[in-house]
Amino acid sequence: MAENDRSSLPIGVFDSGVGGFTVVRALRRKLPSEDIIYLGDTARVPYGTKSPETVIRYSLNNARFLHAAGIKVLVVACNTASAHSIKALRSALDIPVIGVIEPGARAACSATKNGLVGVIGTRGTVESRSYAHHISEISAGKVTTQGLACPLFVPLAEEGWLSGEVPRLTALHYMQALHAILPDMDTLVLGCTHYPLLSAVINEASSEIFGHSVSLIDSGVSSSYVIGEILKDRGLENPDSERKGVLKTCVTDTSHIETVGELFLGEPLGTVERVDV
Amino acid sequence: MAENDRSSLPIGVFDSGVGGFTVVRALRRKLPSEDIIYLGDTARVPYGTKSPETVIRYSLNNARFLHAAGIKVLVVACNTASAHSIKALRSALDIPVIGVIEPGARAACSATKNGLVGVIGTRGTVESRSYAHHISEISAGKVTTQGLACPLFVPLAEEGWLSGEVPRLTALHYMQALHAILPDMDTLVLGCTHYPLLSAVINEASSEIFGHSVSLIDSGVSSSYVIGEILKDRGLENPDSERKGVLKTCVTDTSHIETVGELFLGEPLGTVERVDV
Repeated sequence: MAENDRSSLPIGVFDSGVGGFTVVRALRRKLPSEDIIYLGDTARVPYGTKSPETVIRYSLNNARFLHAAGIKVLVVACNTASAHSIKALRSALDIPVIGVIEPGARAACSATKNGLVGVIGTRGTVESRSYAHHISEISAGKVTTQGLACPLFVPLAEEGWLSGEVPRLTALHYMQALHAILPDMDTLVLGCTHYPLLSAVINEASSEIFGHSVSLIDSGVSSSYVIGEILKDRGLENPDSERKGVLKTCVTDTSHIETVGELFLGEPLGTVERVDV
Repeated sequence: MAENDRSSLPIGVFDSGVGGFTVVRALRRKLPSEDIIYLGDTARVPYGTKSPETVIRYSLNNARFLHAAGIKVLVVACNTASAHSIKALRSALDIPVIGVIEPGARAACSATKNGLVGVIGTRGTVESRSYAHHISEISAGKVTTQGLACPLFVPLAEEGWLSGEVPRLTALHYMQALHAILPDMDTLVLGCTHYPLLSAVINEASSEIFGHSVSLIDSGVSSSYVIGEILKDRGLENPDSERKGVLKTCVTDTSHIETVGELFLGEPLGTVERVDV
C-alpha cells in the first residue's frame, strides 16, 4: 500500500494499561479528526517493574496486534516501553513509530532556562536513563538531569486521589528527594503517563520545595505535536478534516479500565473489547 | 512415591511477587527445619487487578513449575490466587494445596467477639468475596463481613513507607471508609500479603477511628499453623527436626525483589534464580 493510501487508517496507540489514555487525550485535542485504536495490555500491567527483555517482548506483541488491525503510525504511549523498545519496534515495523520519551526530552530542553531538569517516572523508566540520554544528546551535554522513581503516584492517580493531604504530602516527599539531588531544578518531566493527573499537586509541591515555579513537561502533550507534524510531513493526515475521529479501545484483560478510564481520557470511554495479543 | 517418602522435600510456596515472603517469614518461624522453595511470578505481578480466568491460568503455571521441582505441599501465598485458583489447583495436583484465605477466615471467626469482621485487600480479592464466603460458611452465617480494597498499601509497603504521615493518613482514610460501612467492627483481616508490614499504622488508625482496639488477622501467620498441622497429620514433617531449613527463591523476571525482599522476609534473602514457568 502506498503511504498516502494509508491516510484514512487510524493511529495505533499502546500502553501497559490505562495510563496511555492521557496521551490519547492529548492526541484527540490536537488531531480531532483522526481515528485512534488503543491497546491497553491490562493482562500484563505494569511494565515499570519488568526487565527490558520482557518489556521488548510485550511491546512487539502489542505492535503486531495493532499493525495487523491496520494503522498508519504507532504511538508507544508507555514511558517504560518507549525507554526499552523503540529500536526493536522500528526494526520490526514499516510505519513510523513514535515514543513519548524523545518528544518529552525535546520539550524539556526547550523549557529549561538554567539547564537543570528533573525526571520522575516508574523505576523502569528512571533506571533506563532514557530521558537523561536523549536530553544529553539533544542539548549536546548542556542540560543536566536527575531522575527519581515515584511509585506512589500511579495508585494515587488510579484511585482518583488527585488532591488532599495524602497526594500533597506524597508530592512534597518526592520533591524534597529531588531537591536534595538537584536543588536549582527549573523543569520537571512527568515521565509516566499517570502523572499528568497529579500535575496540580506536583506543581504546588515543587513551587513550595524549590522556592520558584518549575515548568512541568507532559510528554503526552509533547508527543501529540510531534505526531501531528509526522502526519503532515508524510501526507498521512485524514483527508476529511471536518470529521470527528473515532476511538476504539482494546484490552488484553477485563479490568477496572472501564471505571477509571474516563478520568484519564477526559471523555466517555465507549465500548471496550477484550483481545489476545 | 509414598506420601511419607516425601517428608524431606521442601514446601512449595508461590505468590505473584514479593508479598508472599510475609507468609514465608511466618512459615520459617513456625517450621524452622523445613526447606522452602519460593516462586515469585514477578514477570506477571500484580494478580490483584487481573480477571479470575487469567489468575487461574497463571496459578496453574506456577504450581506445575513447583510440583516438577519436587515439593510435599503447595502453599498459595497470594490472596488473589487463593481466592480464584484453589479448586483448580486441588484438581490438578496430587499433594495438599493450602491457600491463605481459609486459614485467615477461620482465625477471624475465632477472634471476633461481636461477629463484625472487616476484610481489606486488593480489588481482586475483595471483589471475589472469597473471605466473606468462607467466613459465612465457617460461622454458619453468624459473622457479618464488609470488604474494602486499599490499593495504596501495596506501594507503601514496597517503598518501605511503614510509618509517618503518608501511611498514617492513608490508613485513616481507609479505616474511615470501613467505619462508614461497618461501624462496630472488632476484627480486621489483612487480606493481602503486603499489609502485615503496615500493621502498626493500621492498628493505630483503626483504634483511632473505631474508638476501641481492633484485632488484626495476619492470614500468613494463620496459614503457617494450618500447614504445620497438615504436615504433622500426614507424617510429612521433615524427619530431622534439629536442622535449619533452606529457602530457595525463584522469580519469573529479574526485579526489585532483591532490594525489597529482605523487608518482607525479615532475614537476608540469599540467591535468587530467574526461571520460566
